[in-house]
Amino acid sequence: MPKSIEVCLTPALLDLYAIEESIVVVIDILRATSSIVYGIDNGASAIIPVAQVEDCLNYANQGFLLAAERNGEVVEGYDFGNSPFSYTPEKVAGKTVVLTTTNGTKALHLASARAHQVVIGSFLNLESLCNWLRIQNKNVLLLCAGWKDKFNLEDTLFAGAVVNELRKDFAHFDDSCVAAEDLYLLAKDDLRSYLHKSSHSHRLAELNIEEDVKFCLQLNICKAIPVLSGDALVAIKA
Amino acid sequence: MPKSIEVCLTPALLDLYAIEESIVVVIDILRATSSIVYGIDNGASAIIPVAQVEDCLNYANQGFLLAAERNGEVVEGYDFGNSPFSYTPEKVAGKTVVLTTTNGTKALHLASARAHQVVIGSFLNLESLCNWLRIQNKNVLLLCAGWKDKFNLEDTLFAGAVVNELRKDFAHFDDSCVAAEDLYLLAKDDLRSYLHKSSHSHRLAELNIEEDVKFCLQLNICKAIPVLSGDALVAIKA
Repeated sequence: MPKSIEVCLTPALLDLYAIEESIVVVIDILRATSSIVYGIDNGASAIIPVAQVEDCLNYANQGFLLAAERNGEVVEGYDFGNSPFSYTPEKVAGKTVVLTTTNGTKALHLASARAHQVVIGSFLNLESLCNWLRIQNKNVLLLCAGWKDKFNLEDTLFAGAVVNELRKDFAHFDDSCVAAEDLYLLAKDDLRSYLHKSSHSHRLAELNIEEDVKFCLQLNICKAIPVLSGDALVAIKA
Repeated sequence: MPKSIEVCLTPALLDLYAIEESIVVVIDILRATSSIVYGIDNGASAIIPVAQVEDCLNYANQGFLLAAERNGEVVEGYDFGNSPFSYTPEKVAGKTVVLTTTNGTKALHLASARAHQVVIGSFLNLESLCNWLRIQNKNVLLLCAGWKDKFNLEDTLFAGAVVNELRKDFAHFDDSCVAAEDLYLLAKDDLRSYLHKSSHSHRLAELNIEEDVKFCLQLNICKAIPVLSGDALVAIKA
């Protein structure tokens, strides 16, 4: 059966897609899915995504690290937020992290309710993710977490990078794939400059996370592919 | 007050935008809004958009022309569908047309429920529309009708053309504006070839409307700007 790739530009559109037999790749480049990939690659046992900041508290006193971010900032009283620099081997190896973020967790939960399988994508694990998707013989939906249900550039650019890598391996691509791939090809020589055109990036610049942005746009520094297993993200078995 | 432009990529996202004080431009390039612009430019007294095919029948026996299209084809028993070639001066001058289409009418009705003002955009009236938007001192939302609530390329390309024209006249642009404008700049030298990359265009090619597509991609052959007044689209007073 010829396989298809589609790009869902925001979680608000997810209901339009039949994903029961598909692999859904959740994308929240700045910064949730980049940090998740980096954390799992650095030996975190599991990362548990939860929808609400309060849900993190259900996991208190179990030896878990608690991470909560809203509107780009660490919530007071939590161990850390979703900066990738919090997910180094020293901090997370062998540990379980409970994480809530503005957009990424929401997209994950929506996808997990229906999809055949949910995995995590970021520029950090682009190549390893694409090599794996290529041999699964499943349709793929690239789900951009967006910004408060609206379209954002950075997630779309990553979706475009995946489409570009898999162009020869899949038979069907929708209009969103064409757009995402062309935007990626336009931006790929300098993703950071391109993102400076974006409103979201301006907002993030104000939050002083320019170093995070730079980190999240690195290509292929991780091999891990986090996969949702029950309510936790763990390293996929190769 | 500095004015903003945003692009809403599908009607399914419209609830995310505050449009009570905005001008909403409804865009359904293939083919509803192109035909509406052409019809009003050719002297149609009014074009009444309705949501359901059955709603057209409420207007039967009043001397109106009835136009209905579903999935790209004229509904049996109706005067015509939404091919622009049905909206020539000989056919529509002095007449009122009642029109239902798959995506365009739906977008119009959603917008009219909340917006300050609703106007119609197409490549045919690009320049005249932009000249008018430039002097209104209102925020603008470009609403792509899409395809069954999903993103489509042709509506996004037109939104990008408007953004490109108005780049110097507005202060704020969202991520969708950046993406739409860049896609337009990539495609503008040959819009038709570019659209042949799109799934929707492939589908339309199968319906044998290549001549319609060619027609709808012409720039600035019309001056008219249709505006929603009550339940009818009429020529805007300059």
